[in-house]
Amino acid sequence: MKFRAEIDIMPLEALLDPQGKAVNAGLRNLGLNNISSVRVGKHITLQLETATEAEARAEVEEACKKLLANLIMESYRFDLVAL
Amino acid sequence: MKFRAEIDIMPLEALLDPQGKAVNAGLRNLGLNNISSVRVGKHITLQLETATEAEARAEVEEACKKLLANLIMESYRFDLVAL
Repeated sequence: MKFRAEIDIMPLEALLDPQGKAVNAGLRNLGLNNISSVRVGKHITLQLETATEAEARAEVEEACKKLLANLIMESYRFDLVAL
Repeated sequence: MKFRAEIDIMPLEALLDPQGKAVNAGLRNLGLNNISSVRVGKHITLQLETATEAEARAEVEEACKKLLANLIMESYRFDLVAL
């Protein structure tokens, strides 16, 4: 079965996010004053072909833990969509 | 009303994504051979307070077009969640 994984990797809530702060300031300079709490992370999409959805889920978990996310500073979550 | 926007900004399909290619190679080196078509973009969350959902949507659109996404190379999409 073919799946598409949509992965979000975000800085942990407890940590400062200087990039988000900079974006927030930039938006205010553009006159968008209703916006706050900007946080910037990564969005990764990938395709994978496995026998079962459980296998696909395990493989994406492994990819996130071993390469995509730095678990000291980031958290991840993902959705799997069957193709 | 308060909303949270979840914004995904991805490189256009027509463009090469060297970062995605590098991640794909890295995953293969880890033995994750079922994975392909990796693309890497940004995930941005922000909060905003507006009178209506339509206003919130318009403000996020403006933020994406003016600052967050480079429309020559990237596309964006977002979801609004009422808080």
